[in-house]
Parts: sequence; structure tokens; C-alpha cells
Amino acid sequence: MPHAADRLAAAINRSGSPVCVGLDPVFDKLPDAVRAAHLEPIAAIKEFSLGVLRALAGPPGATTPLAPAIKFQSACYERYGAHGVAALESCIAAARELNLIVVLDAKRGDIGISAEHYAASAFSRMHADWLTVSPYLGPDTLEPYLSSAANPNSARGIFVLVRTSNPGSDAFQSQQLADGRTIAELMADAVAKLGQSGPGTTGTSGLTNVGAVVGATKASDAAALRHRMPNTILLIPGYGAQGGAAADIQAMLRPNRDRANPGTSGVLVTASRSVIYAFTPTQTDWQTAVATAAAKLADEIRTIIA
Amino acid sequence: MPHAADRLAAAINRSGSPVCVGLDPVFDKLPDAVRAAHLEPIAAIKEFSLGVLRALAGPPGATTPLAPAIKFQSACYERYGAHGVAALESCIAAARELNLIVVLDAKRGDIGISAEHYAASAFSRMHADWLTVSPYLGPDTLEPYLSSAANPNSARGIFVLVRTSNPGSDAFQSQQLADGRTIAELMADAVAKLGQSGPGTTGTSGLTNVGAVVGATKASDAAALRHRMPNTILLIPGYGAQGGAAADIQAMLRPNRDRANPGTSGVLVTASRSVIYAFTPTQTDWQTAVATAAAKLADEIRTIIA
Repeated sequence: MPHAADRLAAAINRSGSPVCVGLDPVFDKLPDAVRAAHLEPIAAIKEFSLGVLRALAGPPGATTPLAPAIKFQSACYERYGAHGVAALESCIAAARELNLIVVLDAKRGDIGISAEHYAASAFSRMHADWLTVSPYLGPDTLEPYLSSAANPNSARGIFVLVRTSNPGSDAFQSQQLADGRTIAELMADAVAKLGQSGPGTTGTSGLTNVGAVVGATKASDAAALRHRMPNTILLIPGYGAQGGAAADIQAMLRPNRDRANPGTSGVLVTASRSVIYAFTPTQTDWQTAVATAAAKLADEIRTIIA
Repeated sequence: MPHAADRLAAAINRSGSPVCVGLDPVFDKLPDAVRAAHLEPIAAIKEFSLGVLRALAGPPGATTPLAPAIKFQSACYERYGAHGVAALESCIAAARELNLIVVLDAKRGDIGISAEHYAASAFSRMHADWLTVSPYLGPDTLEPYLSSAANPNSARGIFVLVRTSNPGSDAFQSQQLADGRTIAELMADAVAKLGQSGPGTTGTSGLTNVGAVVGATKASDAAALRHRMPNTILLIPGYGAQGGAAADIQAMLRPNRDRANPGTSGVLVTASRSVIYAFTPTQTDWQTAVATAAAKLADEIRTIIA
């Protein structure tokens, strides 16, 4: 399988916009009809998830999805235990059938052998293309996701948490080190190093399979972080509903991108609630509303990065 | 249900030693007979896990387990997907039947609503008593585990990653801030604050339900971290096989403990491989070997903290 960054870049080029729909379904927010059709909440969540995926695939006969990537929030499925994980496995398989790049947002992080197990779970078992991981335990704990048997030929990638969009993130990530860097900048340097010096690798797109999560709500930080990670794909939450604006996205674009190929922009803007809940509870054609919202998001981001 | 810290302290007082056996089973390391008896690796892992739990429960008729607590490494089960999670759920239920305090070592960490889902998964669904969590996203992301509907009356607790025993942890956790603290000390202060000012709470034992993971291999750090977290239960990996020694454990004891009640010591020393693999592959009475190793660990730690 080709390099993870190249596959993502190609998918973005095909669809024309570097966006990712976040699928974090909560039972109470599902369409009335979907909730009423199932006795078990997880069954409703599975039906809804599959419906969102079909909506993103576009109308019958469409060859390119409305969005190139989907991000599954693992917690929303895990809360239903083994049944939830089984539903997540089914939904990821469906997403891959629909040619969507799959980001598993599970924020895993553990040492050595346990990290290898998480890599095996996400990549060999679930077949996710990218996994979000937490860096606190140290750079050595990120390496197994890149070098283990579960990830031959750099076919899979990781998005390392660097700068998140939640208000409380400042209390840790903005703290200044004695050497002048913030903690987030320390992590950004580690991400860049893992991507450039290995075990992460650079694809023919010029991008590495060691990405970073950088929220759109911290614009001044974001430009500095991009500077430290010139060839890193930034997974960007916080656009729109959480307050991130066009200028915030533009500050995170890769300097040496090819404007004709949005896959080289080095950003992947992710939005969840504004897309997957773009309906009223009683609406029966809710999938149309989701598709419309996804197309609108893709158009907005296409314009912003042009 | 009583306060999480009080339940753990009481269990330690009953068994006489603040130890926790780490259950992180890997198929290749299981006894030959257990491997040969199953077509599916996860079925063998489940049988082995249940066997370890029975060994820890002590001989027939014993009223007190050899160790008061068991720590499940979630990654070892998750790598087998939904089947693995189902096995984990069964094993946790069995551990509770045997009166073991259950620590779910899943190192979860996410924002707001997703953290609530992880709390629901660990506490409401899996019925773990304690969950390990990662702090990088900010102190606000730790609060849902303490204040959500999944944790009424502080019946459950969290162990926050503060200072881990892996070699690479220094690269992040030992970095010095401009204010003189290390990153680990920043996290320790946040842990103490969450426990003292809420939403964590203090039990009648004087200990809080916001614990911390502090490795035994960083003794000089450990004393300073204990000073910052006087009433925090420290979950301590790294003893024995990884190089942690008696002095390292003693440096982490709670100053105002009651020597007659080991549950007030504020430490929970966890060991895995030295206990659960204390047999030769062909040994058929491997459960006896596990029980002997657990009793030896408990004796060692009892002497160290006396």
C-alpha cells in the first residue's frame, strides 16, 4: 500500500478540499426516526454512522466523496463496550469501501509493547489509515506506531496531539520552558524530528506520516508551530463552531505547497457537529442535510486555501 | 458505593501490602498448555487471565486475595478488537467477584464530551474502580472522569500520568519550565489541586480519588513529586525488573501515613511480568507459580514500607 501521506494527499486532490468530517455520534442527537427504529442505542448509532458515510460518498454514481476523509471518535463507540467496538469496526470497513481515508481518533499513548498493541488494534485489526496519539510519555512511545509490524512501508500515519482547541489546553501546552519554547513547541519539534529522521518517513508528496493535531483556535501559536513542522500534515479541529476562522487556517498552510494541488497544503480541517447534526430532529431526509453541510464545508475550505 | 480511595485503602489493609499485579498478557508468553487449548489467541488470553485472577484469590476458602488490586493493560485485549474487549469485560467482572480492586490501564485522554464517554466506558460499562488517564490536553479534560454521571459519590478514581518509568520519558517530563518546575511537577501540582479543590474529593482515609502514576525508576524526582502530592495515591510501575529498588519506594511513601495501616501509605506498587510469567512454558501448575510470585511481591513491599 502506498505511503500514508501520499494516499491522503491524493484523496484531497481528487475531492479538491482538505477536509475531514468528524463522526462522534451521541444517541440523544440522532434523528428521531433513527432513534425510534432501534431498542439498543449502539444499533441506532451504527445506522446513523453508516448513513453519514453514504451521504459523504455523494449521489449514486459519484466517483469522488464529498470529503476525502472521515474521523471516528472512538469514545462514542467504546462507551458501549464490545458491541460498540464491533460497530466501530463495521463502520470503518464501510468507510474504506466508500474510498474515504479513515482517521481513528482514539488518542492512544502507552509505552513499548503496549503501544505496539495499540498500533496492531488500529492498523491491523481496524484498518484505520491514521491514528491520533498522545505524546506525554515521550518520543520513544510514538515510534512503535511507525515502525511496528502493523505498519509496513509507512502505509499508516499518526497525528500527534500538539496543540488542542479546548480552553483548558493553555494550562499545560502554553507553559513556557526554560529554553524559551512552549510545551507545544517542544512536542512540535519532536514530531518534526520523528518525521524527518525516522522512524516516520516522507512520501513523494513531500509530506511525512507523522502528523500533528493543532487547533484552529490558537492562531498565533499555529503559525509558529507550522514553522517548526514544515512538512507535517496538521489535523485541525476547532474551525467554525469553536471559533476558528479563515485566517487561522491560512496561518497553518504549508509554505512550499503547490496551489494547484490542495493535497500538498499540509492541512486537514476537521468539523463534526456542524456537518453530522445539520438537520432538525424530525427531518426524514437528514442524509441530504448532512451531504449539503459537508459540501459547504469543503467549498469554504477550498476557498480559504486557494 | 464508598469513596474510591477508601475502598482501595481498606483492601490494602486487609491484604497487608500495597501491591497491584499488572495483567498484560501476550499470547506468545502464555503457558504451552493454555496456548494449545485454543484456536483463537484471545480465547487463550482470556483463559490465562482468569487463571491469574484465581491464583491471586488465594487457596480455596481464602477470604483475602494475595494482592489487593489488579491492573488490566487494555491494549493487550483491544488488539483483538470487539472480541478482545468482550474478554476484558468478562475478566474485569471476574476480578470484582474475587474482591480485587480493578485498575483499568487504558491511558485515556480527550476533551469534554469524549472524556465523559471514556468515563462511561470504564466506570459504567466495564465497572473498573480506577482508570489511568493522560493529562496532556489540560486539567479541564481530567474533570469529567471525576464529576460525570458515571462516577457518583467519588466511587471511582483516576491515576493521572505524571512521571513514567520508560527511558524516553525524560525527553518531555523532565524538561524544565521557566518557573523552575519540571513538566512532571506541573502535572503533579494539577493533580494535587484537582484532588484537594475538586472535582476530586478526599475520603475518610485522607487520600483523594485523583491518583498519579509515578515510576519507581526516577527516585530523585519521586520524592519531590510526593512532596507536591501529599495525599495522592501513587501507582508505581518499574519496581524490580525495570530497576526500581526499595529506596525508590520508600521515597514515595506518604509522610503522614499510619504505619499500622498500609492502606494509608499512599503507594500502590505494580508489577507485571515478574508475577504473571513466573513459570516455565511447559509448567502445568503455572497458577501455583503465579500465586507464589504474587505472595513474594506482597511480602517484599510489606517489608519495604514497614
